Amino acid sequence: MRSGKKLIVALDIYDGSRAKEIALKIKDEIFAIKVNWPVVMANGSGIIKELSEIAPVLCDFKIADIPNTNRLITMKAKEEGAWGIISHSFTGTDSLEAVIAESKGKMKVFSVVTMSHPGYREFMEPLSERMIEASLRCGVDGFIVPGNDYSTIARVRKSAGDLLLAATGIGAQGGNAGKAVRAGADYVIVGRSIYQAESPLSAAREINMEISSEN
Amino acid sequence: MRSGKKLIVALDIYDGSRAKEIALKIKDEIFAIKVNWPVVMANGSGIIKELSEIAPVLCDFKIADIPNTNRLITMKAKEEGAWGIISHSFTGTDSLEAVIAESKGKMKVFSVVTMSHPGYREFMEPLSERMIEASLRCGVDGFIVPGNDYSTIARVRKSAGDLLLAATGIGAQGGNAGKAVRAGADYVIVGRSIYQAESPLSAAREINMEISSEN
Repeated sequence: MRSGKKLIVALDIYDGSRAKEIALKIKDEIFAIKVNWPVVMANGSGIIKELSEIAPVLCDFKIADIPNTNRLITMKAKEEGAWGIISHSFTGTDSLEAVIAESKGKMKVFSVVTMSHPGYREFMEPLSERMIEASLRCGVDGFIVPGNDYSTIARVRKSAGDLLLAATGIGAQGGNAGKAVRAGADYVIVGRSIYQAESPLSAAREINMEISSEN
Repeated sequence: MRSGKKLIVALDIYDGSRAKEIALKIKDEIFAIKVNWPVVMANGSGIIKELSEIAPVLCDFKIADIPNTNRLITMKAKEEGAWGIISHSFTGTDSLEAVIAESKGKMKVFSVVTMSHPGYREFMEPLSERMIEASLRCGVDGFIVPGNDYSTIARVRKSAGDLLLAATGIGAQGGNAGKAVRAGADYVIVGRSIYQAESPLSAAREINMEISSEN
């Protein structure tokens, strides 16, 4: 049953046919498919609709523009039937509110308040708590958390109540799916470890076992 | 002569055919065309190449992801022949460096260190000077400045030396093209006032007169 699944595969590649092929192979193992800009650049946003026929799609667009542009990006993702969308909160509540207003009732909005790469510490980290508070006030559905930093997951979980937490940076960036879930993540997002595997299906199964064994 | 021109038209719309039609009408009045995500979502990144045949294209992607994703987005824009690309700097120097490394010698990289909407003041504004310094260290080619805030343009010009400054928020968001140039902008980016005008050509000419009369 999809609702019991916690694995989101990140198909962070250009090739739309390959993305569909991998998604079809592993569809019984995943809750959703995350896509980001490269695959939309190469295929247009229609790829969101095509992948949505296989599993729910989370658009990892890290939206970070003025309210009007944020609204236009969100509208198109919604039109293509996306399940969720990822927006930065750093650009302010008016920008985030534009994404939420356009998504309302149709797509889950995940706010970025921490990231999984080292550079995030330079400017964003000291603002993380304030960005969480602002995102909660705006009415987001969840947060993106760094899957390689379990104490941060636990910290965001404490502030986020029962909102959804999706952990990135699992696998290639060092995070462990089981530990991320145990720290408080609802979903683990795994990219390279699945789509670069010789057998994406075996890789996805292994991660699901990791998740169950750790709980 | 294109090199004397300061006007960049922002075709922040979905419709690729309409974007080309407007670009063709005003091509003698502009230095470049700015595109953002909506038109790429609707048409795929091939629209960058098509518009590049009319005038240089500046990809306003406000890139704000981990280094690997930033690199993939930049690579595709470069492949399509873009003249320049816009990246956030708040995601840290490793993320910005990925954009610069991939662009090197092929595309101008503009860093976002201020924005033109009110929400920018909540988190970004206090970091603006530090983000400018970090961007300079990374080796950006220029900065995006708010065309409706002349004192900020002058402040960024002081830090940026002879790098390129492109001012957004002209027209619909309240900025005046002439005043922005006088404050230190090399380029003024104008969207709605041109593409929503009954005659985009007349609107573009008017802005160019505004620019010359103020200098």
